Amino acid sequence: MNHDEAPDRGGFTRRALLGTAGAGLLAGAGAGVAGAVALDRGPGGTPAAAPGGALGAARVAFHGEHQAGILDPQQARVQLAAFDLAEGAGRDGLRALLKRWTGAAERLTAGEPAEEFENQVALDAGPCSLTLTVGFGAALFDKAGLADRRPAALEPLPAFPADALDPARGDGDLFVQIGADDALVAVHALRVLQRLAAGTAALRWQTAGFARTPGATARPVTGRNLMGQIDGTNNPKPTEDGFAAKVFCAAGGDQPAWLAGGSYLVYRRIRMLLDSWEALPVDRQERVIGRRKADGAPLSAPPGAAEHTPVDLAAQGPDGALAIPADAHVRVAAPAANGGAAMLRRGFSYHDGLLPDGAPDAGLLFLAFQTDPRKGFTPVQRKLSRGDGLSRFLRHEAGGLYAVPPGVPAGGYLGQQLLEG
Amino acid sequence: MNHDEAPDRGGFTRRALLGTAGAGLLAGAGAGVAGAVALDRGPGGTPAAAPGGALGAARVAFHGEHQAGILDPQQARVQLAAFDLAEGAGRDGLRALLKRWTGAAERLTAGEPAEEFENQVALDAGPCSLTLTVGFGAALFDKAGLADRRPAALEPLPAFPADALDPARGDGDLFVQIGADDALVAVHALRVLQRLAAGTAALRWQTAGFARTPGATARPVTGRNLMGQIDGTNNPKPTEDGFAAKVFCAAGGDQPAWLAGGSYLVYRRIRMLLDSWEALPVDRQERVIGRRKADGAPLSAPPGAAEHTPVDLAAQGPDGALAIPADAHVRVAAPAANGGAAMLRRGFSYHDGLLPDGAPDAGLLFLAFQTDPRKGFTPVQRKLSRGDGLSRFLRHEAGGLYAVPPGVPAGGYLGQQLLEG
Repeated sequence: MNHDEAPDRGGFTRRALLGTAGAGLLAGAGAGVAGAVALDRGPGGTPAAAPGGALGAARVAFHGEHQAGILDPQQARVQLAAFDLAEGAGRDGLRALLKRWTGAAERLTAGEPAEEFENQVALDAGPCSLTLTVGFGAALFDKAGLADRRPAALEPLPAFPADALDPARGDGDLFVQIGADDALVAVHALRVLQRLAAGTAALRWQTAGFARTPGATARPVTGRNLMGQIDGTNNPKPTEDGFAAKVFCAAGGDQPAWLAGGSYLVYRRIRMLLDSWEALPVDRQERVIGRRKADGAPLSAPPGAAEHTPVDLAAQGPDGALAIPADAHVRVAAPAANGGAAMLRRGFSYHDGLLPDGAPDAGLLFLAFQTDPRKGFTPVQRKLSRGDGLSRFLRHEAGGLYAVPPGVPAGGYLGQQLLEG
Repeated sequence: MNHDEAPDRGGFTRRALLGTAGAGLLAGAGAGVAGAVALDRGPGGTPAAAPGGALGAARVAFHGEHQAGILDPQQARVQLAAFDLAEGAGRDGLRALLKRWTGAAERLTAGEPAEEFENQVALDAGPCSLTLTVGFGAALFDKAGLADRRPAALEPLPAFPADALDPARGDGDLFVQIGADDALVAVHALRVLQRLAAGTAALRWQTAGFARTPGATARPVTGRNLMGQIDGTNNPKPTEDGFAAKVFCAAGGDQPAWLAGGSYLVYRRIRMLLDSWEALPVDRQERVIGRRKADGAPLSAPPGAAEHTPVDLAAQGPDGALAIPADAHVRVAAPAANGGAAMLRRGFSYHDGLLPDGAPDAGLLFLAFQTDPRKGFTPVQRKLSRGDGLSRFLRHEAGGLYAVPPGVPAGGYLGQQLLEG
């Protein structure tokens, strides 16, 4: 935990601060929060009581033990992108780039202009809870002369049945996740990073997604995806025993020391076959998922149960059949069915127009942070790709795996532990 | 004006209401606003003081003299789409469809589920200021046996120099503009309309855009586009003399009676060449536009001027040159230079990933409501396409022209005046 973080009622952190106390407030990791007002945001990304007009001024500290954008509530808008390092940029080019990005992230997340550019599309707004999160793809290590520091866990993911991944829309050397509660702020931050990368790294792919706008729901709720399903109920909570060990790396075994406090991020662009899905009656949709659509309560639970009622995989209906069908998503994905594998999912919806066949190009930008993909995403996805009834309605179209370095202390820069350790 | 509308300080209407007073409140056009709380939103779409957590509950009345989504502040998110009428649907099919859409619009804008579909992706949120606005393309009239009622002003727009319009992403028989402050609410409304159209009309194209999230800016401001320019300063204000005559049709001349209280909408998907634009120094960008970037003040104005300082096209600098260059956008687009032509613009930004050449597929979803495109968009665009310095940075890639029928009284339906008049 950072000094400026404290658990809120939802179990997540209060990293979001109102920016009225001045940009210098969080320059030191130990500066504390005197004079700043914490926004009380739950895991659904919705302020419990957003001060009027404060959405723009809300800021998330850039400095900390972990990068921002992992534990923080999801913002209304996200930009995901990856850059490829230019030939010849090497380790020095990479370091200079990461220093430039760090400087820009410090300024933009504090609501200050990025000094290099007067071209401020976001002049009127504050930081709008802007976070920038950076990850390293496997190919970066060779290109930057860091092959001996490539984590073993960054080995390519296996090919899963029915995967049809477009490499042009996935992978990449340097991944960025940019979240903000205002779309223009997020676009602007991406453009700044892109210009700062010019000559050193070129944009390989970019896509945008969304979650709920703060205040759209009356109380913090787990997000709902484009299928209409509540999604993320089983996410590990920071208040749980062993939470950090599920999300953040520690040195030891074959995990490199430079990644301590970091994480692995699995990205998947998962198109949803919405026309087919919406043609199913709701009770059939619920049996595919294993939860009730309206409130997310497990089908194993009695009336009156709610989203967080524990799932009882053994429960039977009056007819003796399993209450949660054998191929229901919650059964196949349950940690208990996957050796306890857990990931912190932070997915966003996307909706990018019509495909040539008239179907919506829409679905889930799946993002999952985890300690080790070999024990997290890979075993779970192996199982889902074979036995999950939901997979008939999904198409994995692109993806990536990235090592997410730890957070940046004041005076440091992104990836410093990798480049100098 | 509706009974439930009153001008606010920004000059626009207070049509947005908090939904706490129950869904029946606005069922009658004369029901008034007793018990409801008006959101004070200016033309920039930003509540001056959004009550905490009220974004979801904010609603915009569906019924009224004019359709919603014209005078109302722009929402954070928009879905634009057009449908083509199926062969054989005819006038009866069109009427039945418009009645179904009306019923869904009444329910969804009040935050109620669309009865036909339990598949509620937006269950947790209120209406989030949802508006649905419908327009009719020229081709609809022949297909529905209404050729004798097609407005003369709906004749195809002329081809302008440098136009490169993709018909697959423009035109269409039935246009819809769906605005909401939450992306999921807007997507859901589109899916409901699409399902209600099944068998009668098929989606031809769809795209999504964004404006500022309410609360992102500290005060109501004119919107800023992806170039970073303040955009919309010269929009006519409802408080101006003759405002209605610039935006809404009246019967007479060659304007049909059924369109009284309606409007014409010109849509253009205008890609911005952001890489080229951002490579220009800010002072050169300002000379292309004719306004200062930071605050939107005209270049003709002295220091201390602001966005709404009147433009002085004759002003000269110390060197005797025009303060606002001959090809500056504000000069070429000025109503004074176009026979007083005026349009109510309500454009949104879009940002849809990368094009094959690596440039961002991003720009402006231009939307302009006007009394007669022959006296509004056409003369202005003819001039801009030849003399506007900004046009070097723009590409018109798709477009449409639609007759927007008047608003719906309680008990009526969209297009009733056309179909029954």
